[in-house]
Amino acid sequence: MAFYSKYKSILTIIFALSVAIVVLFLVRQNIDQRPIVKEPVQYIMHYHKNDMEELKRKASELKSCQSKLVERELELSHNIQRVKELEQNLREALTNRAEYILKQPLIFAITPTYKRWTQKADLTQLCQTLSHISNLRWIVVEDSEQKTPLVTNLLSHCPVNSTHLNFRTSQSLLNIVNTTDKKPQVKKPRGIEQRNTALKWLRRQYRHGEVKGVVYFADDDNTYDLRVFDEMRPTKMVSVWPVGLAGGLKFEGPICVGDSVKQWYAYWARDRKFQIDFAGFAVNIDIILNTKALILTTSKPGYIENDFLEQLIEFYDLEPKANSCQSVLVWHTRTEKPQMFYEEQLNKMGHPSNPGIEV
Amino acid sequence: MAFYSKYKSILTIIFALSVAIVVLFLVRQNIDQRPIVKEPVQYIMHYHKNDMEELKRKASELKSCQSKLVERELELSHNIQRVKELEQNLREALTNRAEYILKQPLIFAITPTYKRWTQKADLTQLCQTLSHISNLRWIVVEDSEQKTPLVTNLLSHCPVNSTHLNFRTSQSLLNIVNTTDKKPQVKKPRGIEQRNTALKWLRRQYRHGEVKGVVYFADDDNTYDLRVFDEMRPTKMVSVWPVGLAGGLKFEGPICVGDSVKQWYAYWARDRKFQIDFAGFAVNIDIILNTKALILTTSKPGYIENDFLEQLIEFYDLEPKANSCQSVLVWHTRTEKPQMFYEEQLNKMGHPSNPGIEV
Repeated sequence: MAFYSKYKSILTIIFALSVAIVVLFLVRQNIDQRPIVKEPVQYIMHYHKNDMEELKRKASELKSCQSKLVERELELSHNIQRVKELEQNLREALTNRAEYILKQPLIFAITPTYKRWTQKADLTQLCQTLSHISNLRWIVVEDSEQKTPLVTNLLSHCPVNSTHLNFRTSQSLLNIVNTTDKKPQVKKPRGIEQRNTALKWLRRQYRHGEVKGVVYFADDDNTYDLRVFDEMRPTKMVSVWPVGLAGGLKFEGPICVGDSVKQWYAYWARDRKFQIDFAGFAVNIDIILNTKALILTTSKPGYIENDFLEQLIEFYDLEPKANSCQSVLVWHTRTEKPQMFYEEQLNKMGHPSNPGIEV
Repeated sequence: MAFYSKYKSILTIIFALSVAIVVLFLVRQNIDQRPIVKEPVQYIMHYHKNDMEELKRKASELKSCQSKLVERELELSHNIQRVKELEQNLREALTNRAEYILKQPLIFAITPTYKRWTQKADLTQLCQTLSHISNLRWIVVEDSEQKTPLVTNLLSHCPVNSTHLNFRTSQSLLNIVNTTDKKPQVKKPRGIEQRNTALKWLRRQYRHGEVKGVVYFADDDNTYDLRVFDEMRPTKMVSVWPVGLAGGLKFEGPICVGDSVKQWYAYWARDRKFQIDFAGFAVNIDIILNTKALILTTSKPGYIENDFLEQLIEFYDLEPKANSCQSVLVWHTRTEKPQMFYEEQLNKMGHPSNPGIEV
């Protein structure tokens, strides 16, 4: 007890401090459980938990969104490709085809025509033939004082691009017919001044080098295989080929070896440099535009084509076509003059045909 | 001091407790700063902070991804629409047009033909005409023992669907020609047995109701306005229209009032019930298939068409076409027989024409 009394104060302090330490320990132990200390952490944790779950959900959504986006981008690029292809197809089917056609040399088909019973039938037939040919201008020259309604109407209904001209054959060229039945007709043929009318029109319309094209004399009673137009289109100077049923022969025209004309197969006027029918040659338009060449009204019968070509080229300028002159792609046909036995008789009998019906 | 001595122990305890409380307070104050307490919270906060920043970034990415996705989906749907439209356009330009054409009644054009100088030219011309017409079958019947290479070759190069038949005209029908020059030819015309060969072929190919179509006799030297095929296509029984340059007249055929045939414009054989040329009528194929009607080899000259139609229909069955018979859409043209003046002479002179060239 002497020890206690002596160190009473110190022991008391030690005791108090011990109590304080125990209390402190207890208090400290209690911190994590004490609501006031735990609350903010849990709150943070809770707050973050909701937030994070939301964010985690969004992150996984992002993943699926991104993979969908890749899918869609792929699909889109396929579709854009498909649209491009389809548009290309359409463009090729429409514009490019037209462009391709417009790049081809233009064919100027010159057709003299005159009033007769079979005129409308013949022009109808020729319209059907020419409407198969792309990039062609049909120059129809009527032998008449005025353009006739029949031809005007026919051309307006024909899908071929056309130019309608007219020139009445001069009186001096009419009735110069030297024929006897069953003999070759060696009269001054029709169409000379009409063809010249077309040549003059071409020279008024174009200057040399202004248009890529070829000039062909296409009579309205001839028959044309469509391939003859493909053959003539690339003509550089003057291209030639045989003509069926011409010159009193099975065919008339050049005899060729490869790319050269060697001689002619003809009977009539064998001294001609160019023994060929109008249906058997085509001329590059620049050769026409370079000269003032015309069909001559002074030519001897049968020399008309020859005398025209002599103004344009030399013999060696000729370009054989139609399988080196081995194929007949054009026929010098004529439509028979119909026999109108009964037309007049019916008129006399008082049963005239309806004049409103155009034939 | 007496007070202190008396309460020394109590005061000491109070002091110690006070010190303990201060210490406790200080300790407690220090909790938040103490690393061992602070660390987990900060760690959580730090961990979550990185995580959250990443997640927040992803969430904002999701937003942009979603808006991009909406954009792409929209673009895609536009593109799918465009593809559909383009495919529809192409389909219409190709299939639908074809379907439309295939729904039209089929035209069976029957053409008898025989060997002559102008045969190839005439068939070439007719091929060009018919190749403008959709949904047409060209039945070409040669008057020959065998199918000839000329016609076989021509048909193989012609874009028209065709059937090639042949039948050699019987000896009994040949040379029955009663003509004097400058008078109408009233011979037994060519092509009777060839037309019958085509009719029999049709009856072998089809049963009644099996095909929607119309039968037309299209000679190879006639001229056809393309509109005549539009006119004949919807024929229910037998449709009729005038034929230009036929029967020795400007035109021959029906005189119509509205939808009825009233009488005929003709000179020859005016007692005929049907005063019309082969080129002037078309028959619904079921009318052909319903009967065994044939072109009669026993018919009087000029009565051939009449006797055939009498087997098929009554007068009131006729359907006027071509603007109530006011338009000529077909011409009974003939191609002139070419004069081969010089062919033989050249042969005699030893300059034969190249036999390898087909004319």
